[in-house]
Amino acid sequence: MRTRFQQGLDELRQKLLRMGGLAEQAVDRACQAYIDRDLARCQMILEGETMINITEREIDEHAFDLLAMQQPMAKDLRFILAVTKINSDLERVGDQAVNIAERVMDMVELPAADLPVDIPRMAAAVSAMVRRALESFIEAKAELAQAVLEMDNVVDRMRDEAFIMLVKTMNDRPEATRQALDALLIARNLERVADHATNIAEDVIFWVRGADVRHNVHELNSRRPRHFPK
Amino acid sequence: MRTRFQQGLDELRQKLLRMGGLAEQAVDRACQAYIDRDLARCQMILEGETMINITEREIDEHAFDLLAMQQPMAKDLRFILAVTKINSDLERVGDQAVNIAERVMDMVELPAADLPVDIPRMAAAVSAMVRRALESFIEAKAELAQAVLEMDNVVDRMRDEAFIMLVKTMNDRPEATRQALDALLIARNLERVADHATNIAEDVIFWVRGADVRHNVHELNSRRPRHFPK
Repeated sequence: MRTRFQQGLDELRQKLLRMGGLAEQAVDRACQAYIDRDLARCQMILEGETMINITEREIDEHAFDLLAMQQPMAKDLRFILAVTKINSDLERVGDQAVNIAERVMDMVELPAADLPVDIPRMAAAVSAMVRRALESFIEAKAELAQAVLEMDNVVDRMRDEAFIMLVKTMNDRPEATRQALDALLIARNLERVADHATNIAEDVIFWVRGADVRHNVHELNSRRPRHFPK
Repeated sequence: MRTRFQQGLDELRQKLLRMGGLAEQAVDRACQAYIDRDLARCQMILEGETMINITEREIDEHAFDLLAMQQPMAKDLRFILAVTKINSDLERVGDQAVNIAERVMDMVELPAADLPVDIPRMAAAVSAMVRRALESFIEAKAELAQAVLEMDNVVDRMRDEAFIMLVKTMNDRPEATRQALDALLIARNLERVADHATNIAEDVIFWVRGADVRHNVHELNSRRPRHFPK
């Protein structure tokens, strides 16, 4: 029975990685669609969202079934809860990719404008954060997750710079206001993806450190909770 | 033992409601701060965020402890998982209130501008969604949660209208670009609060309907998962 449970945990991890792959792909496609003003790619993102939503629900059901199957060890319990949270964040990364795709679809109806903002660079940084956050999960390494938190500051700075430059563009070249606004909103979508990567990293830290901390605690072995009930 | 567990579930519900109250208060304060250009209220929101973050962690720990305490019934398990998800959404509602407060702090440095956007009306709709979503949770009513999903469309429409009107303002009155942009970003923050209320409503439906559906299923009683493992 224990072995089957462990097998179930492995499958849960695999499913979450597949989900992570889908979310990361959606963000990469969205940025490529922005660069190439590519409507076909936008369409792929919209269609891909369905698969992301289905996978999210599957992972939640799987996590539920594992919890219902047997009383998990504290370490496994923490892992399963982390998976359900990371799962939600990945689904929302997918939502942000959809938002970007919708913005690009809006944008291509306007003439292209030369804008003082490096969306591809920001996209690359954000994409790296998602990838790194998933790596920290796979390898269960809090240090890797910590690095993601630090990258978030860099992305926030990029977003602030984009904001300043694009507001200036709106003032100096009113005819490019709409395009500048689209770029600004895409920068915000990317910042939100970075926020989700940060949430994932925090969940990894909570899971890894929590498990470490609790691992050697005597009460745990007797299955007595720490804080409950007062 | 069972009674203690039930008591723990009640406490968890109470804590989540307190969390909901904090998040709702933060959004209401943020909108009031916008209307009154009130820096003191912005400060209260920033300070309140700490309490929201602490409460979020407490709820997660409490949920964890309940799961570790004994193998919950499927219905209770679904409830606990719904709580952890709703908890994350409420924390992010608080984040949006902080974003609005930061925007207001930015805004008051500029001269006030008359803008064609009804932020208070949008804020009232969004606030009602959060309240309704929490009610659907308290009363475990999927119909109430369903109503929240429908309200989301109304808020999306308000956001679209605001977007169109504010872009027009930027084009027609370039001197008000910065203020129009602030209003537009606040409208987006409110839209995101509405999205979180929608997520909460979906979690309530999943919990209530899922529990209903599974309640009479034979396999459940023998604690065999449905999908696991293939």
